[in-house]
Amino acid sequence: MDTTAETTSDSFTSYCGATVRRAIDLIGGKWTMLILWELLDREHRYAELQRRVAGISQKVLSSELKSLVSAGLVEREVTPTVPPQVTYRITAEGRSLDDVFAAIDRWGHRHR
Amino acid sequence: MDTTAETTSDSFTSYCGATVRRAIDLIGGKWTMLILWELLDREHRYAELQRRVAGISQKVLSSELKSLVSAGLVEREVTPTVPPQVTYRITAEGRSLDDVFAAIDRWGHRHR
Repeated sequence: MDTTAETTSDSFTSYCGATVRRAIDLIGGKWTMLILWELLDREHRYAELQRRVAGISQKVLSSELKSLVSAGLVEREVTPTVPPQVTYRITAEGRSLDDVFAAIDRWGHRHR
Repeated sequence: MDTTAETTSDSFTSYCGATVRRAIDLIGGKWTMLILWELLDREHRYAELQRRVAGISQKVLSSELKSLVSAGLVEREVTPTVPPQVTYRITAEGRSLDDVFAAIDRWGHRHR
């Protein structure tokens, strides 16, 4: 292996490796990304979200939403109707993931 | 619900939703992303990869690598030493994920 490339590569890892790993811990995961993708489109009620993220269990959806709310990427609004209506929407912080999903979309179109 | 918004939202989803969902299915898992991230840096032998992707089990690493090779994102090279040495490296197709990880890195730096 070319030594120059190796050195560059190591600097590359120490420069942004930790940040990327932390970001992947937060937003990586198939279900997390699919939920974020739906909420980047528009706000959803819990049941809509479960329908749109096909195949997700209620347990996983609830737990994922709790994590996303706690990370400040999604907000949860309860309307005091009977029964109460719970709506989830992306926060400004979550909205800033637009670039990531745009890159995934571009990649997806190239990789067919 | 506003019908116009719903239509726009549905067009948006049908326009890029399927592509993004397929891409997330392929590359969205936490372990998948962490492995790709390491291989975007440089090629690795199996044991190095297991050490670098902290916490991954041998079973999951093997299965993830198999999927990535079968998707054409990673290639596997066996050097016929004793014992044989197995090296994994990103393909050109996998290398095109650079943009996705760059977007994650930028997002990670903003979201602290």
